[in-house]
Amino acid sequence: MSTLAEVKQNCRKVMCIGRNYADHVKELNNQRPKQPFFFLKPSSSILLPNEGPILRPGGVNLHFEVELGIVIGKTVRDLDENDTEGWMSAIESYLLTIDMTGRNVQEEAKKKGLPWSIAKGFDTFLPIAGPIAKSKIEDPHNVELYLKVNGDVKQQDNTELMLFRIGRQLADISKVMTLEKGDIVLTGTPKGVGPVVTGDVIEAGLRIGGKEVEEGKIKVE
Amino acid sequence: MSTLAEVKQNCRKVMCIGRNYADHVKELNNQRPKQPFFFLKPSSSILLPNEGPILRPGGVNLHFEVELGIVIGKTVRDLDENDTEGWMSAIESYLLTIDMTGRNVQEEAKKKGLPWSIAKGFDTFLPIAGPIAKSKIEDPHNVELYLKVNGDVKQQDNTELMLFRIGRQLADISKVMTLEKGDIVLTGTPKGVGPVVTGDVIEAGLRIGGKEVEEGKIKVE
Ligand SMILES: [Mg+2]
Ligand SMILES: [Mg+2]
Ligand SMILES: [Mg+2]
Repeated sequence: MSTLAEVKQNCRKVMCIGRNYADHVKELNNQRPKQPFFFLKPSSSILLPNEGPILRPGGVNLHFEVELGIVIGKTVRDLDENDTEGWMSAIESYLLTIDMTGRNVQEEAKKKGLPWSIAKGFDTFLPIAGPIAKSKIEDPHNVELYLKVNGDVKQQDNTELMLFRIGRQLADISKVMTLEKGDIVLTGTPKGVGPVVTGDVIEAGLRIGGKEVEEGKIKVE
Repeated sequence: MSTLAEVKQNCRKVMCIGRNYADHVKELNNQRPKQPFFFLKPSSSILLPNEGPILRPGGVNLHFEVELGIVIGKTVRDLDENDTEGWMSAIESYLLTIDMTGRNVQEEAKKKGLPWSIAKGFDTFLPIAGPIAKSKIEDPHNVELYLKVNGDVKQQDNTELMLFRIGRQLADISKVMTLEKGDIVLTGTPKGVGPVVTGDVIEAGLRIGGKEVEEGKIKVE
């Protein structure tokens, strides 16, 4: 398994699903999608533990979105969502990730029909922790994600609430673009997203059967 | 200078400017931007010469956009558009590129306020030729780009028509995300974009002072 530094170094693309938890769709007044949609974050936005704080660009309303991340272990195309063994074998390991988002930048882009790349792509906008061995997450659709700001729980939900499951996500992405070893996939955020300001302390992590997965913990300013 | 295969292998992100030629803005009924905007293409969309044809996904209205490409030669942040020596030194070489676009997919994304990543990101959607040594392009704002379909000239304009010059593009991108060695920047397409169907032969290239730059030629189906 790659180290976390290698995960950052070897990552060429980060593909992320939008609106994949029903209650999160509602909180942003968005429409529930009939099919999954995706966007890219640049690998230069990855922030490792101890690389420093998340940088809030001036005038940006900075939102957190805690998500289960997947590190791809081999080159795959045209995966079949019903071939569980097939798409599971494309997963090398898991990450705990925070999809930081310039919410006002994104809202303006949405209004104008412009791309999301800037809103999602600033340096430090993708804190990650892990990698978490596949053997530790027997069922990726039964993981509790949480995120706290200054000690207050803001997000806490189980990945069983995903609208589109991981097999569907990997199948859909890999029918458009080849997934390569080292690519990262973010699987969507549950409800509770919100703003942070400079100095706030974000703690995020995941639990399986109520038990914290230590290597998946993030603490970042 | 890297070989073209190394350019593909080393590329982590491809940042592209939208609406950077006035007549192209008009032909798509778009608004002329007050400031440049950008989107990401995945490096997995790069198509080298002799790697085969551009693949048109079913139901996709596939458009060509010929563009001058830039290969970044070193890690840079916060470039200053007025520091010509500074941003010029970040350029390793040039490419001739075609930013293939699923126009109907993009139009639907624009209407719904959704990201452009899929419309721009299919495998084979970024044919490239080169690299072209910096010494061969003394002034990147005085290069004639052309693109023919089945022998008919569809695009032919000079890069002097760019609304936002390359220094401004690199400055704006590098204020959002670190530009790393190997990254590629596409500088926008002139007017004349249009559809191609399977079997069409696209030829594209660039001329300086009326003279073809041989290593910048693309011929692709
Ligand atoms: Mg986008
Ligand atoms: Mg997200
Ligand atoms: Mg373009």
